[in-house]
This record gives sequence, structure tokens and C-alpha cells, in this order.
Amino acid sequence: MLVVVLASLLLLGSLTITLFWVLYYRGGFTWTEDPKHQFNLHPVLMVAGFITFSGFSILLYRVCRCCRRIYVKLFHTIFHALAIPCIVVGFIAVLDSHNLNPAGAIPNFYSLHSWMGLVTMGLFALQFVVGFFSFLILLCCEGATAAFRASLVPIHATFGITTFMLAVATCLTGLTEKAFFELGKKYSLLEEEALILNALAMVLTAGAIVVAYIIMKDDFKYRGHILITAQGD
Amino acid sequence: MLVVVLASLLLLGSLTITLFWVLYYRGGFTWTEDPKHQFNLHPVLMVAGFITFSGFSILLYRVCRCCRRIYVKLFHTIFHALAIPCIVVGFIAVLDSHNLNPAGAIPNFYSLHSWMGLVTMGLFALQFVVGFFSFLILLCCEGATAAFRASLVPIHATFGITTFMLAVATCLTGLTEKAFFELGKKYSLLEEEALILNALAMVLTAGAIVVAYIIMKDDFKYRGHILITAQGD
Repeated sequence: MLVVVLASLLLLGSLTITLFWVLYYRGGFTWTEDPKHQFNLHPVLMVAGFITFSGFSILLYRVCRCCRRIYVKLFHTIFHALAIPCIVVGFIAVLDSHNLNPAGAIPNFYSLHSWMGLVTMGLFALQFVVGFFSFLILLCCEGATAAFRASLVPIHATFGITTFMLAVATCLTGLTEKAFFELGKKYSLLEEEALILNALAMVLTAGAIVVAYIIMKDDFKYRGHILITAQGD
Repeated sequence: MLVVVLASLLLLGSLTITLFWVLYYRGGFTWTEDPKHQFNLHPVLMVAGFITFSGFSILLYRVCRCCRRIYVKLFHTIFHALAIPCIVVGFIAVLDSHNLNPAGAIPNFYSLHSWMGLVTMGLFALQFVVGFFSFLILLCCEGATAAFRASLVPIHATFGITTFMLAVATCLTGLTEKAFFELGKKYSLLEEEALILNALAMVLTAGAIVVAYIIMKDDFKYRGHILITAQGD
């Protein structure tokens, strides 16, 4: 259980450090009236949606094995649903901060961070729609769809962890961009803000490792359907 | 099997694109006589060691289930051993290119790319030493160490895929750094070199996804020890 506590601390820690960084070093939040500070919503909301909410959603699906399965599914859906407004507003924030820049529009979608971000958002949307339809809506005709739903589970799980890992990698490329944009040559002096950014990268990396460990660990897998033949497992 | 072919293409493709990029756009290789071009060894050798050799080593361990286990282990070790000189020379190349820079030494180990690289190299070394000792040397007293070796397998596998994913993420942050260092404002024009760099990032990302998929897919798992109780599996 210690490893689940550690994962929770890392997921919450990455959001806390991002918030602290943006509020303390980057001047906090605004909306379109000040596009430079509107940008600050982007890292916070993307970390909240793609890392903290999605991370907890994945964790609780694996760790809660005591309660009824449908409740776990509902909470898994709700946590992912909470991530959606974060991601949408975080995406609008970066577009606005580019397009409304007073010194002339900054181009969109050229960096590898933005390409990876688009892939991650696409996968997230696909996973949510397919997951919602297959594992909740299709429950209305439970018997007839059981085989289909069972065959989708490993695909949903593999793409789910893939999306999470991609999200972490996208965060890391975004932090690298930001460090070189804002700190430039000063980055190498490793002053306060540089250390905070690197620490945030390390916490995100550690979070990805611990969540992946929990997911791959057999102990945490829900094996209701195997219990009957447990002696051979 | 199609997915294994795809993974191989992506692993070889990432090395090919890196080589092409460095030779065609970055002026090829030198050693200490020209530190700027000595740097070019860094991306090529790190991709060769951490992505291509390590990737194939992981793949062949999972995919080869027809031949004797000891041969698979030996090839797994040999491919990882081939990665070591690549990583060592790639590491020296970047240190030299920083320290011997004619316009004054460039600082080392400040960026999050370098921190992540150090963590990845540390994990790789640990995995190699522990793996070599536990799964090859301890075979000399096979019976007495069987339980210990079996208990280490999931840990080695989890840390192995973690190291590979970390390596990919580190490559992506390195490419982001390089894009902003070398292309700067020109990056947003998405000219040839920018497209090549983004394409390389996409191939690396796709490679990570396909390798992770193969590793997590139950079909590819070696389950010799479970065959006896196959009806419960």
C-alpha cells in the first residue's frame, strides 16, 4: 500500500509544484485581457487534467478491489470527466496566449511538444469515448456484450497507460521549452526557478514510474474472472 | 507478428533518421579537434544504445520463445552489452563538446534533459549489473538460486521497461533543447530540419508505444513455468 501512497503524493506533488511555480515565479493567472499571464493556465490545467486527475483515475481503478465493480467504473469515468474541462481550458489558454500576443501572433503547432500534445489529446478523447460507450452504455445489454467488452479491456488498459506516459513525456518537453524560453542562458546557473522546474520534471518522472509499477504489478490486477480457477494462477 | 515488424522498423527508423539529420543538417562527426561536431555523436550514439540496441534486446527477450532460454538470455545480455560503448562514448562526446567549446566551456548538468539522462544511465547500469549477476552468474548454482531469481524477474522487467521509457522521454527533451538552440525562432517556420526533428520525435514516441504494447501483451510472455498449470491460466 506504501507504493499507492507514494504515487498519490507524486501526483498531487506535481500539481502543487506547478501551481507554486506559476504563482510565485510567473505572475499568476489572467484570462484574455493579458495573454502572457493567460498562458500560465496551460501548464497548471494540463498537469491537473492529464497527470493528477487521470493518474488518480487509473490508480483507483486498479487499487479499489473491495467495492462493487460498477462504482469503481463510475469513479474512473468521473475522474476522467473532471480532466476534460481542465484539458479544454488549458488548450484554449495556450492558443489565446499565442494568437492574442500584443507583439504579434506566436505560431501554433510547430514544436514537437505541440505535436505530442495533439497526439495525447486525440488518444485521450478516443479512450474516453470508446470507454464510456463500451464499458458503461453497453452494460444495458450486459449478457450480449460481455465477450466484446472483455476483449476491449486489454486494449483500453494498454492505450490508457500509453496516453498517461505520453502525457508525462509531453509535459517534460513543454517544461524544457519553457525553461529555454524564459530562463535562456540563465538556466545553466541553476537558480531558484531552474531548480523548481527540474524538480517538477523529476516528480513527474517519478510519478510515471510509480504509476507504471502499480499497473504492471500483478497483485493489483482485478481478477474476478480468474478466482474460480485460482489454483492454477 | 506484424506488430513486431512495426516495432523493428520504428527502432531502426529512429536511428536512421537521427543519422540522416546529423549527417545532412549538422555537418557529421569529428572527435575533440572540433567540439561542435563532436556533439553530433551524442544524439546518434544515445539513440543507438538506449533505443535501438536496448529496444531490440527487450523485444527479442519477449518474442523468441522457440529457442532455449539460456540462448535468449545471452542475446539479451549481448544486445545490452553492445549498448554500453555507445552510451559511454555518447556521454563523453557531449561532455567534451561542452568543456572544450572554443568560445568558453558550456555548463554541464543543469537542464532537465541532463538530469533525466543521469537517472536513465544510472538505472541502465543498475539493471545491467543486477541482471548479469542474478540471471547469468547465479545460474552456476541453479537449484539453490531459483526462488531468488524468479522473485527478481518482475522487478527486472518493470525497471527495464521503465528505463526504456525514460530513455525515450530523455531523447524527446534533448530534441526539444536542440531544436530551440539550433533553429530558435526559425523552428516555427517548420522548414526541412524542423520537420525532420519533429518526425524523429514522432517515430521515437511510436516506437515506445509499440514496444510497450508488445511487452504488456500477455501472448508474448514466456510462461514456461505456468504451462504445467495451464488450465487455470
